[in-house]
Amino acid sequence: MATEKLLTGNVGTVETQYHTFALPPDEMVLENGETLGPVTLAYETYGELNEAKSNAILILHALSGDAHVAGYHPGDKNPGWWDSMVGPGKGFDTDKYYVVCANIIGGCRGSTGPSSINPRTDRPYALDFPLVTIADMVDAQRRLLDHLGIDRLLSVSGGSMGGMQALQWMASYPDKICSAIPVSTAMRHTPQQIAFDEVGRQAIIADPNWNNGDYYGGLVPARGLAVARMVGHITYMSDKSMEEKFGRRFRDERKPFKFTPDFEVEGYLQYRGSSFVDRFDANSYLYITKAMDHFDLTRGRKLRDVFKGCDVKVLVIAFKSDWLYPAYQSQEIVKACKLAGLDATYCEIDSTYGHDAFLLEVEEETHLIKYFLERVHNGRVVENYEI
Amino acid sequence: MATEKLLTGNVGTVETQYHTFALPPDEMVLENGETLGPVTLAYETYGELNEAKSNAILILHALSGDAHVAGYHPGDKNPGWWDSMVGPGKGFDTDKYYVVCANIIGGCRGSTGPSSINPRTDRPYALDFPLVTIADMVDAQRRLLDHLGIDRLLSVSGGSMGGMQALQWMASYPDKICSAIPVSTAMRHTPQQIAFDEVGRQAIIADPNWNNGDYYGGLVPARGLAVARMVGHITYMSDKSMEEKFGRRFRDERKPFKFTPDFEVEGYLQYRGSSFVDRFDANSYLYITKAMDHFDLTRGRKLRDVFKGCDVKVLVIAFKSDWLYPAYQSQEIVKACKLAGLDATYCEIDSTYGHDAFLLEVEEETHLIKYFLERVHNGRVVENYEI
Repeated sequence: MATEKLLTGNVGTVETQYHTFALPPDEMVLENGETLGPVTLAYETYGELNEAKSNAILILHALSGDAHVAGYHPGDKNPGWWDSMVGPGKGFDTDKYYVVCANIIGGCRGSTGPSSINPRTDRPYALDFPLVTIADMVDAQRRLLDHLGIDRLLSVSGGSMGGMQALQWMASYPDKICSAIPVSTAMRHTPQQIAFDEVGRQAIIADPNWNNGDYYGGLVPARGLAVARMVGHITYMSDKSMEEKFGRRFRDERKPFKFTPDFEVEGYLQYRGSSFVDRFDANSYLYITKAMDHFDLTRGRKLRDVFKGCDVKVLVIAFKSDWLYPAYQSQEIVKACKLAGLDATYCEIDSTYGHDAFLLEVEEETHLIKYFLERVHNGRVVENYEI
Repeated sequence: MATEKLLTGNVGTVETQYHTFALPPDEMVLENGETLGPVTLAYETYGELNEAKSNAILILHALSGDAHVAGYHPGDKNPGWWDSMVGPGKGFDTDKYYVVCANIIGGCRGSTGPSSINPRTDRPYALDFPLVTIADMVDAQRRLLDHLGIDRLLSVSGGSMGGMQALQWMASYPDKICSAIPVSTAMRHTPQQIAFDEVGRQAIIADPNWNNGDYYGGLVPARGLAVARMVGHITYMSDKSMEEKFGRRFRDERKPFKFTPDFEVEGYLQYRGSSFVDRFDANSYLYITKAMDHFDLTRGRKLRDVFKGCDVKVLVIAFKSDWLYPAYQSQEIVKACKLAGLDATYCEIDSTYGHDAFLLEVEEETHLIKYFLERVHNGRVVENYEI
């Protein structure tokens, strides 16, 4: 194992693309009955779709992610958000697979969301944007795959909210996927997860610049959004990873006033909070967290019925120190799969990185995912599977 | 055990008292070299001090607590914050012991803090109030005990920040205490604990009404303080206790707008946040959390030297589901005690209540504390100690 080269290449320079559908007089009908249109979805693709169109993998991102999962945009210093996992020879091997990463409706990274122009008013939607759900996000992604000519995905995968979308694909379109790899995720939010999201929302709503969502063209609720992001970052790390990264080290700075950050961890959180404001829309934060909180595949169903009739191979990955999406939630996914008779595998990786582990534990994830995909693609179990 | 009546009485109607010291030309010299005076400390007492003055116990409160630990103020519906533990026949038995509960400097519940009048300006201190430490709080409490004629305490106890003060008593005044009962606490904050405090502070600072701390007589930073309190409440509970208390239950309310709380847990947090504003000063929240974050009994010392030369019996209590002050931090206290040759006992109570457990797990705490105090008071080990 140690001698094998894991990270072998990069997809290089890439470009985000956009697909627009639900053009007049057509509109997309949302889960709550409201309509939305036109709808644009940002996406990127890597690798080549084979002739049989049987090698397509859809990757879905977390709360603050986007369609740019791998490679570099012209001029970028840093690659896409899961570049370590997507590329030639990597876990999602672009030499073998055609990888599509799709953004979400409700977001602010190129797809239609509350900051988009409402064609009925020619002004940004703001709070006139309808409440969208994880199922609506997945419906929009299915429209994109139709456009790309992909009838059935080899696999669908994502971490955190991306994992919720992967689970929703299993529930909504089981015939359109061969397999799913939900990572660090859950079939529904616990009250603690809802509570953390609600604190973030209330921090935004408390910012006078939020102005009931109507701030486009003016001052944005930067301070509220920064506080929301700070809370988030605490939950993405673990007690231990914070200890290892920051300890109780002080910042080496003169203090202009009493409540300036003293500790490195404070400076880190403030930096993370304020830099987030430059790339994210506060209303999208509200809409997306609401979609996550309302997501509940078990609602009104017995656990054994959640994935009933679904013939999909599933690899569920969790991380020991992830306390935001604790391993027991992944175990519940496996239980629901098994109760429905699915071929499901559970892997719990021993990591100290907390929820961030799904972005960082590249080596183990690469092996798990690479061999799982080979098994699904070749329709056979690979022998000598060893970590 | 089950047949013994644990909660046998209430101290009845009580009154908060105030002791003022450091009157001109005297001033209290703080740990950072700054001075403060005059200083008022709010406190309450219960039971009778015996002739030998050997039965006094000092109880110290957490971040948002006050001197009113037991009984009722005239007209009150609810008793003091640890009434279940302090009273006739209770864990801290006021039939046997003279219990003193002291407030803290820097606070806003009757003691000198940032909302007090600065005698130099005749206006509230606001951010002119000096940064106080846990050691400063303890120094002020020692002055109160001098005033009450108590030379040596039978015990000092408190949970959370109250436990930090108890530990600081061991470090600052080992000769003035026979024993200590630190509960759900730590010798120093981890970066995760600092991070949660910092989010609360930033939520306050982000509120325009905060106005660099100068808001007395005007609009207070209510929304920021409420968000800070919401974050706090998440950390006081556990994933499991939230699940048991709220689940994913929806509130039964018409929604005036999209981001009104849908879930019960959201309504609970908002209620806790907004009601906190009525009884707490935002600047005190900043000062007290800073004092907690800077508290570090291990700084510049080897663990074996933290309680060196301290001849104090110690009962350390922790709770399994407390993730804000995890049990490993209590174990570290015990280790420091043992390394210094102290008579220290560690008890980890199996509770699902999270950090709040120290206020709720009355039955087990009562036994542990009652028999520990008897042992200290009588100078002997009580046999047949059974839970």
